[in-house]
Amino acid sequence: MTAPLGPSLNDRHDAPASPPRNDRDDGIVSGARRDLSALFEPDGVAIVGASDDPVKWGNWLARGALRGERRRPVYLVNRRGGEVMGRPAYASLADLPAAPALAVLAVPPAALEQAVEDAIAAGVRALVVITAGEADGDAGGARDRALAARAQEAGVVLLGPNCLGVFDAGAELELVSNDLPPGPIGLISQSGNLALEIGMIAADAGLGFSRFVSIGNQADVQVAELIGNLAEHPGTELIAIYVEDFRDGRAFAAAAEAATRAGKPVVLMAIEHTAATARAVASHTGALASDGAAIDAACRAAGIERVRAPQELIDVADGLLRAGPMRGRRVGVLADGGGHAGIATSLLQRAGLELPRLGDALMTELRAGLPPAAALSNPIDLAGGGEQDIRTFDRTARALLRSGEVDAVLMTGYFGGYSEYAETLGRGEASAAEALADAAHVSGRPLVVQTMHPQTPTSWTLRRRGVPVYRSIERAVDVCARLAEHGERGPDGVPQLPPATEPVAGDGYDDARALLAGGGVPFAGARTVAGADEAVAAADALGYPVVLKALGLLHKSDAGGVALGLRDADALRAAAADMERRLAPEAFSVEQLAPVGDGVELLIGARWDARFGPIALVGLGGLFTEILRDVAVALAPVDEERALALLDSLRAAPLLHGARSRTPLDARAAAAALSALSRVAAEHPEIAAIEVNPLLVLPDGVLGLDARLELAAPPHESVGTS
Amino acid sequence: MTAPLGPSLNDRHDAPASPPRNDRDDGIVSGARRDLSALFEPDGVAIVGASDDPVKWGNWLARGALRGERRRPVYLVNRRGGEVMGRPAYASLADLPAAPALAVLAVPPAALEQAVEDAIAAGVRALVVITAGEADGDAGGARDRALAARAQEAGVVLLGPNCLGVFDAGAELELVSNDLPPGPIGLISQSGNLALEIGMIAADAGLGFSRFVSIGNQADVQVAELIGNLAEHPGTELIAIYVEDFRDGRAFAAAAEAATRAGKPVVLMAIEHTAATARAVASHTGALASDGAAIDAACRAAGIERVRAPQELIDVADGLLRAGPMRGRRVGVLADGGGHAGIATSLLQRAGLELPRLGDALMTELRAGLPPAAALSNPIDLAGGGEQDIRTFDRTARALLRSGEVDAVLMTGYFGGYSEYAETLGRGEASAAEALADAAHVSGRPLVVQTMHPQTPTSWTLRRRGVPVYRSIERAVDVCARLAEHGERGPDGVPQLPPATEPVAGDGYDDARALLAGGGVPFAGARTVAGADEAVAAADALGYPVVLKALGLLHKSDAGGVALGLRDADALRAAAADMERRLAPEAFSVEQLAPVGDGVELLIGARWDARFGPIALVGLGGLFTEILRDVAVALAPVDEERALALLDSLRAAPLLHGARSRTPLDARAAAAALSALSRVAAEHPEIAAIEVNPLLVLPDGVLGLDARLELAAPPHESVGTS
Repeated sequence: MTAPLGPSLNDRHDAPASPPRNDRDDGIVSGARRDLSALFEPDGVAIVGASDDPVKWGNWLARGALRGERRRPVYLVNRRGGEVMGRPAYASLADLPAAPALAVLAVPPAALEQAVEDAIAAGVRALVVITAGEADGDAGGARDRALAARAQEAGVVLLGPNCLGVFDAGAELELVSNDLPPGPIGLISQSGNLALEIGMIAADAGLGFSRFVSIGNQADVQVAELIGNLAEHPGTELIAIYVEDFRDGRAFAAAAEAATRAGKPVVLMAIEHTAATARAVASHTGALASDGAAIDAACRAAGIERVRAPQELIDVADGLLRAGPMRGRRVGVLADGGGHAGIATSLLQRAGLELPRLGDALMTELRAGLPPAAALSNPIDLAGGGEQDIRTFDRTARALLRSGEVDAVLMTGYFGGYSEYAETLGRGEASAAEALADAAHVSGRPLVVQTMHPQTPTSWTLRRRGVPVYRSIERAVDVCARLAEHGERGPDGVPQLPPATEPVAGDGYDDARALLAGGGVPFAGARTVAGADEAVAAADALGYPVVLKALGLLHKSDAGGVALGLRDADALRAAAADMERRLAPEAFSVEQLAPVGDGVELLIGARWDARFGPIALVGLGGLFTEILRDVAVALAPVDEERALALLDSLRAAPLLHGARSRTPLDARAAAAALSALSRVAAEHPEIAAIEVNPLLVLPDGVLGLDARLELAAPPHESVGTS
Repeated sequence: MTAPLGPSLNDRHDAPASPPRNDRDDGIVSGARRDLSALFEPDGVAIVGASDDPVKWGNWLARGALRGERRRPVYLVNRRGGEVMGRPAYASLADLPAAPALAVLAVPPAALEQAVEDAIAAGVRALVVITAGEADGDAGGARDRALAARAQEAGVVLLGPNCLGVFDAGAELELVSNDLPPGPIGLISQSGNLALEIGMIAADAGLGFSRFVSIGNQADVQVAELIGNLAEHPGTELIAIYVEDFRDGRAFAAAAEAATRAGKPVVLMAIEHTAATARAVASHTGALASDGAAIDAACRAAGIERVRAPQELIDVADGLLRAGPMRGRRVGVLADGGGHAGIATSLLQRAGLELPRLGDALMTELRAGLPPAAALSNPIDLAGGGEQDIRTFDRTARALLRSGEVDAVLMTGYFGGYSEYAETLGRGEASAAEALADAAHVSGRPLVVQTMHPQTPTSWTLRRRGVPVYRSIERAVDVCARLAEHGERGPDGVPQLPPATEPVAGDGYDDARALLAGGGVPFAGARTVAGADEAVAAADALGYPVVLKALGLLHKSDAGGVALGLRDADALRAAAADMERRLAPEAFSVEQLAPVGDGVELLIGARWDARFGPIALVGLGGLFTEILRDVAVALAPVDEERALALLDSLRAAPLLHGARSRTPLDARAAAAALSALSRVAAEHPEIAAIEVNPLLVLPDGVLGLDARLELAAPPHESVGTS
């Protein structure tokens, strides 16, 4: 009933089991291509710890296993022997007449090690370890590492420990504690209760699971490997995931990208580390490229649909499975009342979808047979036309779908309930439902239905024929928005990590500038100096006016450690004396004054996420960074094209492109700088965070005006087993 | 089955039936205090147009009326006489043995006028006019005005025309086409289908209607008057509204404010005019203070909870009715699994709620009796403790609720389903549910439950005892956020409109500046001049550097009609010559150069909304206005305190208050300027929009740097009947 406590509820940022590494060449854990058929389609199953006690796992699993007995032998093992569930129990795996491919271990923690040895000795090829024990919630624990090593040594696949079972509808394998509905969704979950809830909601929508895998502590089999397996499983049309611990997030993302590109959408429900975690990081980039943002970056790279809760997961899955993606953002609304038309229109527009005015020819076609009060401009309100002739619904929907003037039709209101409302209407409603589904299929465009009667035979006809039906209009509209987004963009691609290069020497301002400048980020001319005399010499070389910065402070500007626009040596000396008195800086930087008024200030940065590796970030810079939080993130490194797309995704993007008749700025140079910074970050796993803020974007080129670098402490190292 | 097409789907911005007026002294339509008892609790009912045809309104209404026959006589009237529904029908209202208080008119449009006359002659006191006809969708139509005038002359209350009936659960009055569930919600709706849908969703939550009123065209009885009625109706605990046409929006808001203050929450589902409407307005304020923003402003003034769709409406009503508002934003999460705990935590934090770490004493109290694996820091994960002892749920919830460390408890997961899962647990689950409800009531703090088993006896026990139960965690969390917001702030207050003053003479830059300066908005010193010579003279008087603006252009700055920082007469002459050549301006304005670098630029503005009257707006100014859309709106006029609260509600508010060690700016002066502008707007109904952009907020005071004014064309006039 309970799931292992995930890292989202404890701060494990600094000790992931298997962080992304720079020294791997394919981005996928080596086990990804293992044969998992013994796990899902075994030729025999042994339940070790089988029990008659109805509140024990050993009882539930034995009952589940026996439901598939016509497909494979089921052996119940209990160390006391005797009978379990009215049949002889084996005292040990060694006693079995034949070696089953799969053994499920539901034994006390102290007996686990021996059970694993017995199973290996008996010749099983896969182990499902239900047993939890003292290592619960400690995915990096010694017991788990030992278990995984032993299994790998023996060439056995091990699921768990601390897992809740495995289910394969096609193979009639039900090694789980509850009934699960069959269907096209492959579910990987780190919570048993959430899997149950997802199953109940799926069943209400006429959906269910092809496979379900509870991953537990992921000592051996990890989420990335399972995604790869489901991507190749013919019975799985969509992969749903609830995960608390991504393990190697890059491998996870790469596997999801491959599945998506193979035509199997991946829907992810993930929870985030708390804001408190992010607050602990000093830099802006650290706070902004939060845990949740890193997950979002991985989702965009892999083309994953991210959801927040079980109902949303099934709603999105329903839309993707039954309706499929939209090829644009234009929606035609078909309602049988002004109220429903209006609510749907308001919600669609808030969701960023378009309701195009329909063409005159189409409107003329639609008008035939409708009451004079019907509205046709989109939204379409049949205004009683449906009651007069129920086939008005499919005639109108078909005309809309085949017109090419909309990318999807959202039908909203009473349809589905006419059968119950008047027998004369009911006779035609089923035919109308069939014809609606046909119209959608022929057009290749999604038809999404919201109805106040979602459980009537008519609504079930729609679902059976591939039309998603929702009870509430909010959910139907949210799904339309998803279908449009899903259709608009595939995976951005999970980038390869470059080889790690020589670690940086220090984390000072000089170090950051030198590293980034070497990587290709342009900076304003600058010299680091020890005192006022050196500062004046530097300014003579750079040319006045100059900027003076006190070095060695975390937030120079806030502390009064930056003096702008110093026009001559006197001003420079005065500023240096003032800062020396107030701040006693380690050193000074004298820099050329940049033409700030001519450009826009951005922030570019990167952070090394413990799960997903380097994450690049861009946002509006300076004061606005924290206040407006207008940022975009991506897995690093990003190339220039990707960087430009990130820039363009900012709300502030028009500022770069010449908003309101201003001179357009050099967005491409900004993209190049972001790309360069992201490459530097990806080559330096020892860097926790690095940023340039502000990066001044000018009409011709960019100039970094400040830089900051934060080293990981302790340095990131692989402590995992994969 | 169909609702009248609302103004949200047609552009009626410029022809509201009864716009807010400056010449009314109480803000409420005069009819607000009429006695509506004849409408809801009549001593007799006549159905005019009663019919045996089962697809006619006259049949549905007669059937509904007869269900209340034990409470009052029901007279069926059909001009053909004879029998209807197995009983004698009267050929005319004149034939009735006694005058019923209420007559429902479901007659053909051509027969309506005579039916009204007959009813008045027969002595009825209230009319429900179902008949639609040619004036459908034309709420300002002549027929409706004539109907209303005739009813008012006769002292009769008239609901409709084009309405779908009226329902009063307590009075067993069911003059509607469908069964509706009884309950504590008073519903006013302009759509019949949406009312049905809301009723179905309400019934699923164990809720229903005290009264339901279909308002139709609102020729006589309007939404504001009905709100006033429901506010005084003892059987109504919450008022729900779906409205497409607010009529006098100020009266609407004032009535809703009074209901809210009387302890009856008002939940509004309203649809918005399209973005296309807003695009048609030239000024920024027009585009930003959109239709939806005006509704939001009215909601904040009146303390209305605004929702977007029927499910959300009932979810919020359920939370407000059963759990009531929270007194803070701190939530304790109680889950029976790590997955549910994590999902709820993520969603609550995204919704802006807080999960405080619990105090040590409380954690010690909670730890007793829980498994070692249980997490206690908030979220609380019972980790199997609930299965071991089902009363762990209520013990833990009670401790949390009475601790004072949280303002509400959100319980999430499996509770509600233990009865079905194991009989041993089930026996205690009902008692635990009772004890949970008691704990919430005793503490006076909301307990909100999400469960995967929302329809079990346990879940119904919770609802019956006043605990809202949701199936999906998204909805439960959204409701928690509402309860916190509702508890945080009551109505801001619907401001009185000041008397209208002398209309402005013109809409030029000079006119705008003069009007606003006269109203108390400070501007940079300026002179309007005809050419270069006059400009130099003006600059001599103002002092260099100056700004030169070309007048008579809509977007001066975009057109290159603004020259900043002119340091001497030569520069000024050159700029004037350049503009004259390129733009041929009507005139120039020479202005003092403001210290822009020392402050932050805001936009302040106001727009006259056809329904809600003047709406004040404040946002970040300059380039950022349109790009970031960080704006706040309120019904005008706003006083200084209200204006300051609006400023503080901006995301950019920290910029005013000294973000990152900058000098704090004079937010109070900005608030005073906004208040002054809002007063000017409210005194000038002839002004469609007025704005100052930018308003430069300095450390000491503010300076308007530009102004714009747009007159209504044609002028706003009352064309309504109230």
